[in-house]
Amino acid sequence: MNSRTYNAAGLQHFCASLFSRAGVPAGDAKIIAESLVGADLRGVDSHGVVRTDIYMRRLEAGMMNTDGHMPVRQDGPVTLLDGNNHFGAVVGTKALGLSLQGAKQFGNAVVGVKGSNHFGTCAYYLLQAVQQNVVMMILSNASQTMPPTGGIRPFIGTNPFSIGVPAGNRIPFVLDMATSVVARGKIIVAAQKGESIPEGWALDRHGNMTTDAKAALEGSVLPVGGAKGYGISMFIDILCGVLTGAGFGKYVNNMYENWQEPQNVGHFFIAIDISRFMPVEQFKARMDTYLEEIKSEPKAPGVEEILIPGELEHRCTLERLEKGIRLPESVERELVDWGSRYQVDLAQALL
Amino acid sequence: MNSRTYNAAGLQHFCASLFSRAGVPAGDAKIIAESLVGADLRGVDSHGVVRTDIYMRRLEAGMMNTDGHMPVRQDGPVTLLDGNNHFGAVVGTKALGLSLQGAKQFGNAVVGVKGSNHFGTCAYYLLQAVQQNVVMMILSNASQTMPPTGGIRPFIGTNPFSIGVPAGNRIPFVLDMATSVVARGKIIVAAQKGESIPEGWALDRHGNMTTDAKAALEGSVLPVGGAKGYGISMFIDILCGVLTGAGFGKYVNNMYENWQEPQNVGHFFIAIDISRFMPVEQFKARMDTYLEEIKSEPKAPGVEEILIPGELEHRCTLERLEKGIRLPESVERELVDWGSRYQVDLAQALL
Repeated sequence: MNSRTYNAAGLQHFCASLFSRAGVPAGDAKIIAESLVGADLRGVDSHGVVRTDIYMRRLEAGMMNTDGHMPVRQDGPVTLLDGNNHFGAVVGTKALGLSLQGAKQFGNAVVGVKGSNHFGTCAYYLLQAVQQNVVMMILSNASQTMPPTGGIRPFIGTNPFSIGVPAGNRIPFVLDMATSVVARGKIIVAAQKGESIPEGWALDRHGNMTTDAKAALEGSVLPVGGAKGYGISMFIDILCGVLTGAGFGKYVNNMYENWQEPQNVGHFFIAIDISRFMPVEQFKARMDTYLEEIKSEPKAPGVEEILIPGELEHRCTLERLEKGIRLPESVERELVDWGSRYQVDLAQALL
Repeated sequence: MNSRTYNAAGLQHFCASLFSRAGVPAGDAKIIAESLVGADLRGVDSHGVVRTDIYMRRLEAGMMNTDGHMPVRQDGPVTLLDGNNHFGAVVGTKALGLSLQGAKQFGNAVVGVKGSNHFGTCAYYLLQAVQQNVVMMILSNASQTMPPTGGIRPFIGTNPFSIGVPAGNRIPFVLDMATSVVARGKIIVAAQKGESIPEGWALDRHGNMTTDAKAALEGSVLPVGGAKGYGISMFIDILCGVLTGAGFGKYVNNMYENWQEPQNVGHFFIAIDISRFMPVEQFKARMDTYLEEIKSEPKAPGVEEILIPGELEHRCTLERLEKGIRLPESVERELVDWGSRYQVDLAQALL
């Protein structure tokens, strides 16, 4: 049997049932499942239901809170949210709500978050924010995977930088990028296929540039654009970690490796209410103009289309909503195992 | 006679006198000069007094306002500033003041700016912000120099991304980067020396990758990290241009080429008061820990030191304050010419 195809709603229901039966309140379980399946829909499989296994393992090991208690300290448009070691998607969703509320009330808002966990893709939150006519920047730090420029071992995370902006007739601008040259997932795939990777992607564990995918996985991923990506990743660590009171650098724990302590991930949300600058319809018309002018630019030979950040992922979502989500056998096997443990039937989610 | 060396204070006085005698109010003239010489001090010569000539030419041609009228629309922590076509450094300084004031009053503030001009380096403003215990992000759009990913001609600017964060015993974190692979200035230098440039820096005017520096200057500079730099540059254009009402894409005019219309550059300032998150001293201690831990990381062979963004520029400033600023002959000649036109003696500024 090769990999099979699942429908998004079914898969989401399956994952939510798992989390819920393992002790997560139903509403939160739904959020976590939606965040995972949302990533699969967008083609960001590395952040999809493949994470169910580690989330469930940490939950069962008592490494995460589920009691819903997340202290909020609000001071006008500035909020500090203590995720109190809840699931990242639950903490992120709370932060999203606070930042949207702040933006509507004050015009703009920042929400710093400490005590969180891996919170999936930033795009999951951005897509909700743009519905509210808000420009949203979301940052998160992560456990160590990249060396500083000139260093030889991981110190900073591939800390994502993201921003979402609504448009009018066009789909929203959704930039959600790791600050590494490439996603570590691509190196994993190359290693599995026995292929080499291009120079410039990664260092081996001795700090030498390597094109050997397996050696790269034992080493570190390089920041995008050299010192520039290093600087961007640092600033994200500073806002998400140093400023909020969360971990930073080595104090953000790896969820696969550290079973003694919470991750203490930090996030940072900056929300701006568009209507404080100009009428929303006017802004959206300007966005459409901007995006359409870029898309109309002359193209290099062999280039079919000039793309806007988020455009491919939007198309992938439409396609996978219709044609389903294909899961690798290894992921399928993990889900089946969890399903039998909690009496949830993955087959119900088959397309 | 080869290039000669000038002292920073003298050079600043010289430039301020020029601007002032050409009609800029004395206080504003001082700001513009300080911004230029500040860039030279930091080793960012491309944004230093080399820009005096174009600033003076646009001023004389009546392309810039100097009357001090810059409408401000304030709504809680959100401000829209209309630079009303004043010098960029004057507009930027006004925006800096508004954003610092907003951060102190509300905890955080955003200031969108339209109707501005080339405003020098972001670092000029960041260095003032960090003195106020504020985390400051400053963005600006710029006239077209980079193609979108897949495109062949300039559409977006090398829109700078910048952030400044104070530390305790260590120098502040000051990241101020163009969103291109390299500064266009480096390509200009290569062209002058008849050297080739590395693959990946630029396209020729037909949209082909080129290693010929002269061909690159007629073509376009590439965004840092491919599609990632393209996305970052776009988001900056969106915040600075689309949202504020300033120009964006082709509507930001090139100051060297367009003598009919104002530049209509846009900026965006985001200021966060550190004390709303934790006591400033605690934050600074955490920053010092973070920076010291990065600097203590093991280094790759041949690497002498792991650097923090802004560290080299800080050292350069100390050195040039002491040993002076060496100007290329071509720049010296321009300044002498302007000096004789307005009876200001450049020789007074010699070290």
